[in-house]
Amino acid sequence: MKKCIVVSTPGAKFSALALKEDFEKSLRKIAELGYDAVELAVRDPRMIDVHRFQKLLELYHLPVPAIGTGQAYGEEGLSFTDPVPEIRRKAVQRIKDQMNLAVELGGSQVIIGLIRGKVQPKMNQEEAERYFIQCLLECLDFKPEITLTLEPLNRYETDLYNDTLSAKAVIDKVERANLRMLVDTFHMNIEEPDIVESILRVRDHISHVHFADSNRWAPGCGHINFEEILTSLEEIGYQGAISAEILPKPTPEECLRLTIEYYRKLGL
Amino acid sequence: MKKCIVVSTPGAKFSALALKEDFEKSLRKIAELGYDAVELAVRDPRMIDVHRFQKLLELYHLPVPAIGTGQAYGEEGLSFTDPVPEIRRKAVQRIKDQMNLAVELGGSQVIIGLIRGKVQPKMNQEEAERYFIQCLLECLDFKPEITLTLEPLNRYETDLYNDTLSAKAVIDKVERANLRMLVDTFHMNIEEPDIVESILRVRDHISHVHFADSNRWAPGCGHINFEEILTSLEEIGYQGAISAEILPKPTPEECLRLTIEYYRKLGL
Repeated sequence: MKKCIVVSTPGAKFSALALKEDFEKSLRKIAELGYDAVELAVRDPRMIDVHRFQKLLELYHLPVPAIGTGQAYGEEGLSFTDPVPEIRRKAVQRIKDQMNLAVELGGSQVIIGLIRGKVQPKMNQEEAERYFIQCLLECLDFKPEITLTLEPLNRYETDLYNDTLSAKAVIDKVERANLRMLVDTFHMNIEEPDIVESILRVRDHISHVHFADSNRWAPGCGHINFEEILTSLEEIGYQGAISAEILPKPTPEECLRLTIEYYRKLGL
Repeated sequence: MKKCIVVSTPGAKFSALALKEDFEKSLRKIAELGYDAVELAVRDPRMIDVHRFQKLLELYHLPVPAIGTGQAYGEEGLSFTDPVPEIRRKAVQRIKDQMNLAVELGGSQVIIGLIRGKVQPKMNQEEAERYFIQCLLECLDFKPEITLTLEPLNRYETDLYNDTLSAKAVIDKVERANLRMLVDTFHMNIEEPDIVESILRVRDHISHVHFADSNRWAPGCGHINFEEILTSLEEIGYQGAISAEILPKPTPEECLRLTIEYYRKLGL
């Protein structure tokens, strides 16, 4: 499994990120510390210099297993469940842009996190899910070679797809080989009655993994049992990345160091 | 330790409650199942018939260790940190009314949960804390014989006093014997790096305990280790109530039953 951490790119301001400073400096540090990969948080692919990114990622030997997309919702309010058709259309276009970027970065997965949106006032759950699936299908069929990975998010962040069971249901429903699931330990600690059991139950769907401890600090800073989670990932033959999506606490530098040290302790 | 569960009273609509139906029917069920006490969620003490309550509580032999007050914020927007002085004044009056009710119910504690409010736009953390402490002191000094119990709430519910450390700091600062702390396992699962360590660290401040599992269902429905929490409470000599503040899932009746069965399994 690849030791990975989330890095912000220009224009993205997600708070649950390890590093927000200069992109090249971040990549260099990450490579020096011994990470194998980086996950990029990208608000709008049109805002980044793809050729510069490609060169830097190659220079530091850092593949990009996944691209985070939530800031298009956080900063611009784009979502798959907005009642305004034009906003849904823009959200779909944004994910298509991310899928194009994913191709240029060598086939990264594109994360479907907050871009799903929430059940809006005067809208019921079924209507929201219908909008969501419409938008999702348009993206899935746009580029079947790029995987979209749906991330269950805890109840406080959205009311759509909070746990692995509801994410599995939508994956089973749309029947597309390029829709899979991301499991994030911070969200699982709130939503899954038994984290290991849930991993085993959706074993065939997992394509990406976020490690963050119970308080969303670096793994090892809270009370999540990462040893047993790792054992369950080994048991299901997971070979992808373990990506730290964490708060930059106590400092961005410290959490980079704490994470890699903890990864090593886990034998990653 | 007393086996206790939260019951809603007319006018309160808090979702994290075991029972919302007819008050007398709830008390009867609770007594029949073998609970020793009830915590009441009260939005506005002026809306309830205190004498009827006293008679019913006596009939079913159910003391009231604590009164929950959060709905005055949830339903009416009253808080100790509102920028509008009149709203803060009303919030203080509401807590004084709750303290009067507490006297009539035999000396219940009054919980300071969401009534604290949040850091408002155009307000900094220091200003919010100053408002909070001003209001709190006015209540504390109003009836020194009634204990106010400050409940750390997770980051998603408020940005003021999320963990036991920050709650301890404000308790130490105001220096009033009638300000103490409520620990809630659902919130602790998100905020405390080590729940047992936190309990031991604030051992002298704890006056009330909420049990809810990691998913806010009945204890036993998630992955919190209640055995070790109970051992730590025994170690610090805690003799108060263990009160289930949980979502009414899968049904109100089921969670009443699941909770008492789990309490018994724990040897309570």
